[in-house]
Amino acid sequence: MELLKKIDSPKNLRQLNTSELPLLAKELREFIIDIVAAKEGHLGASLGVVELTVALHYVFDTPNDKLIWDVGHQAYGHKILTGRKEIFDTNRQLGGISGFPKRSESEYDAFGTGHSSTSISAILGMAIASKLKGDQSTQHIAVIGDASIASGMAFEGLNHLGVTDTNVLIILNDNAIGIDPSVGALKKYLTNVKKGTAKDENVFECLNLNYTGPIDGHNLPRLLKELERLKHINGPKLLHIITTKGKGLKKAEENQVTYHAPGKFNASTGELIQKSKEAMPPKYQDVFGYTLVELARKNEKIVGITPAMPTGSSLKFMMEQIPERAFDVGIAEQHAVTMAAGMAAEGLIPFCNIYSTFLQRAYDQVIHDVAIQNLPVIFCLDRAGLVGEDGATHHGVYDMSYLRCIPNLIMFAPMNEVELRNIMYTAQLGLPNPIAIRYPRGHGVTKEWKFPFEKIEIGTSKELRKGSRLAILSIGSIGNHVAELLEELNQPKEIGQYNMRFIKPLDVKQLDIIFDTYEHIITLEDGCKIGGFGSAVLEYANELQHTKPITIFGLEDFFIEHGRVDELYKIAKIDVGTLKSFILDTLNTN
Amino acid sequence: MELLKKIDSPKNLRQLNTSELPLLAKELREFIIDIVAAKEGHLGASLGVVELTVALHYVFDTPNDKLIWDVGHQAYGHKILTGRKEIFDTNRQLGGISGFPKRSESEYDAFGTGHSSTSISAILGMAIASKLKGDQSTQHIAVIGDASIASGMAFEGLNHLGVTDTNVLIILNDNAIGIDPSVGALKKYLTNVKKGTAKDENVFECLNLNYTGPIDGHNLPRLLKELERLKHINGPKLLHIITTKGKGLKKAEENQVTYHAPGKFNASTGELIQKSKEAMPPKYQDVFGYTLVELARKNEKIVGITPAMPTGSSLKFMMEQIPERAFDVGIAEQHAVTMAAGMAAEGLIPFCNIYSTFLQRAYDQVIHDVAIQNLPVIFCLDRAGLVGEDGATHHGVYDMSYLRCIPNLIMFAPMNEVELRNIMYTAQLGLPNPIAIRYPRGHGVTKEWKFPFEKIEIGTSKELRKGSRLAILSIGSIGNHVAELLEELNQPKEIGQYNMRFIKPLDVKQLDIIFDTYEHIITLEDGCKIGGFGSAVLEYANELQHTKPITIFGLEDFFIEHGRVDELYKIAKIDVGTLKSFILDTLNTN
Repeated sequence: MELLKKIDSPKNLRQLNTSELPLLAKELREFIIDIVAAKEGHLGASLGVVELTVALHYVFDTPNDKLIWDVGHQAYGHKILTGRKEIFDTNRQLGGISGFPKRSESEYDAFGTGHSSTSISAILGMAIASKLKGDQSTQHIAVIGDASIASGMAFEGLNHLGVTDTNVLIILNDNAIGIDPSVGALKKYLTNVKKGTAKDENVFECLNLNYTGPIDGHNLPRLLKELERLKHINGPKLLHIITTKGKGLKKAEENQVTYHAPGKFNASTGELIQKSKEAMPPKYQDVFGYTLVELARKNEKIVGITPAMPTGSSLKFMMEQIPERAFDVGIAEQHAVTMAAGMAAEGLIPFCNIYSTFLQRAYDQVIHDVAIQNLPVIFCLDRAGLVGEDGATHHGVYDMSYLRCIPNLIMFAPMNEVELRNIMYTAQLGLPNPIAIRYPRGHGVTKEWKFPFEKIEIGTSKELRKGSRLAILSIGSIGNHVAELLEELNQPKEIGQYNMRFIKPLDVKQLDIIFDTYEHIITLEDGCKIGGFGSAVLEYANELQHTKPITIFGLEDFFIEHGRVDELYKIAKIDVGTLKSFILDTLNTN
Repeated sequence: MELLKKIDSPKNLRQLNTSELPLLAKELREFIIDIVAAKEGHLGASLGVVELTVALHYVFDTPNDKLIWDVGHQAYGHKILTGRKEIFDTNRQLGGISGFPKRSESEYDAFGTGHSSTSISAILGMAIASKLKGDQSTQHIAVIGDASIASGMAFEGLNHLGVTDTNVLIILNDNAIGIDPSVGALKKYLTNVKKGTAKDENVFECLNLNYTGPIDGHNLPRLLKELERLKHINGPKLLHIITTKGKGLKKAEENQVTYHAPGKFNASTGELIQKSKEAMPPKYQDVFGYTLVELARKNEKIVGITPAMPTGSSLKFMMEQIPERAFDVGIAEQHAVTMAAGMAAEGLIPFCNIYSTFLQRAYDQVIHDVAIQNLPVIFCLDRAGLVGEDGATHHGVYDMSYLRCIPNLIMFAPMNEVELRNIMYTAQLGLPNPIAIRYPRGHGVTKEWKFPFEKIEIGTSKELRKGSRLAILSIGSIGNHVAELLEELNQPKEIGQYNMRFIKPLDVKQLDIIFDTYEHIITLEDGCKIGGFGSAVLEYANELQHTKPITIFGLEDFFIEHGRVDELYKIAKIDVGTLKSFILDTLNTN
């Protein structure tokens, strides 16, 4: 690492000879592999842009020139070259650097990115700002992948960009894959461009952009030459580069989906280090994927939809086994939701699987196309709650608030894998309303889960334990922490435990009994307190003029950063310890 | 109207000879003009597609073939030809037909549309459903304007459509205008196509669609021929037609923006029937537009942004007077918000004006790009609350719930024009946070409003009237109804009145005093009760263990249809009468 060790900022980089840059790229690649192998994180995307990263910081005057990395998980090399080499081993850890570019972390991170396809709009805003300040010299660069450019938001940005005279350079990093392989007509088109089988036409020129490419994105001299040339051309430009995701680590090149974020691996061979899987309950994702196939085999009206997350959501099971009824529509949440509505209007039963944080991208479509028309779309909101190392941009903690206010919508959170299966079964029997089912990332709690299906009555909760003084009402998988807590407290008779399951409609019958029975009610959720599940209980209690004290446990009104989920629970004060102190105090005080 | 009077459904239409269709089109156009002249509504868009409407229902077997009209205000002719001629004069009235296609209204309305750019996704969902059912014959048609096709969501739909083998026909109705003239690179491109100056390239062919056009959309024989031909071609197709918005009414053709929804006019001449404007307080929109120009003249960091609503929002004032700092980005709410974030990151002060209902389209961008980075974008949420005749798709009644849960965001609702001016002034002085300012459509209450600016302290409310027993806490312009009510009740000493102004942060100091002073608290808002302003007060009271009764007035959990705003207030039970009864009861009971 003789070159890399000298690079504390791009200033040092720019003092190298161009002939030294290939060696630097090699060292940078090794550095990324070494750290990610030991510390985990996103791998393939950053390996694919090592040469580009070196070239950009060499040619452009960052941080004065503005550089945005779309979907920030490709920015590891950027972080390492811009002063964060020594702390790169804290990547994605609590208190460590973020896995995504972050304005508060470095002046080199011009704009925070976590969700995809935001970079064109953001860089255009910055370029317009430069122009208005009379600044003619600042360069504005956004690097965006071919999976991200197919999202509607990116198109909106290009459509505006093309009629401006701003100094913006869009670099299309074309590797034919996002997390899973790219899809759609634009991808097909780009493939034709690469093969030289596209006609004279160029879709970017149609949008009034100065197009260059495609060129080899691993050829450093070529990259340097083109970037240098484009730096001196005014107006909006697009450079199309071809790269290989996972470049430089054989296994990562060969298994691009697995090596997107491979967990720990052997840095030399790329071999994955298998975690012991014995005796682990299954992931919610696999329960979803397996159950959907099981249901779809019997009910041919069922279709499955994912916006670009077939592997993450496990919809890939259905895509492999019943491909004609399972759809990966690419990074296109808006389209996914409204297409599901169209399908439901024609009598199909769509399971539309979207991560909680990404459903924010299709909020209007949920209201306007699904709920107003009361079409029975089944939303499966994966990765609800605190997601851990991906941090603030990815936590799925607003869904209960932003969905609860929508008329007609049912909302459910299973406490375990069996409830997830049963609500999926219930929903496909035919509901008169749309339903949103939220469940967390990762492993559940129930090793035995393949029981015969049971129908769940809409709006019913489960009394898990009758008590006398204090009732704990939980929603979703966080209810298992209550069980743990009661265990720790030796199952005190005073405490009742309720798995409420439905955020909407609330089980008001059960609530009436609870308010009549107990002295004090505690609600517990892994979402924001404002407008969430606890608020729902509060609103109901107020309406019925129930006056028992209600204490709401949930996320306070600030963004929670990255870290392990158990660490974040403590920060959010929804961990077992915090709950325990409160309960002991309450029982002792009254 | 000798032909039109015979048409009760497309079945009758299909019995005519093709030679009779031009006369039918003429009669249909006159019918639309006559009714809209007297009853108001959207005019220009439906006039522009009269020939297309006749041709589509003649060639295709609706309702078996599925037909979706994007942004439904172009569907008046469709409604008249599909059994709603006799009740068309109830258009947009309470209990009458909707101004947009609506599934519950007619089997010919395949999919409800109000917001733009949804039709491609919906029709593709339907076409996939047909295929899965083994149905080879059903045709699927979506009609979309060139302003709507530039929205990201439409692109997402096209991108998927192009890789399917579904029988879908997209008709691009190219008239170079939405409500205001279309903008962007795609519009420029389409203009080149029309002029024959585009190169060989075709953007839709790049997306793997079978492209035909452009053809004259007012030439009925030509339309019939092309539609008949395309009906027999399998796979996804796009027909590009050129039309004139307002076609057939000279004034409407010449003033397309005004005649989008002109109000009452003379059916023969097109002359607008002027409402008496004397002594009316100004519209909030004009106060926004005027004030923004006034502020921007002094503060050169200010920029204005609208996604395709320069006229409706009155941002056009700034676009006319300071064009280099005012941006119409087209129907691209997502881009508008993230571009604003990029501008704010570089020190500009963006006023991003978006209708409340349309901000639902950019919800993720508000969270991910603005709030997480705490960038001080100033959102002006026009048409908040019940909007009246546009109905369920357009009411801006969820904003308080879906924005209140977002950390870092300030939210304010002015009670009158002066408060709107002053909060705009305050915001551009430089806030540490983003802010959302919500205000209603139409006229305010204050004839005198051009006072010197006053800074508003963040998180402060206004005590309008001290009382003893009952406090009414209102948010925004609905507070004027409270004033009216107190007038009716002869200013009873028992009642206190508070203009709370900030949904977030709440004025907790004032709230503490209120809870200490009064016996009963009433909250009043023109948004949904679930998670809204009343819930905010409730959450605070619960946290502080205030136990006074709280009664929340706001919208219950169902969608409110179209009608006059005063009628809808009664349906929603937030009108003066309902409030009055409740207050009298409460004062007398206790």
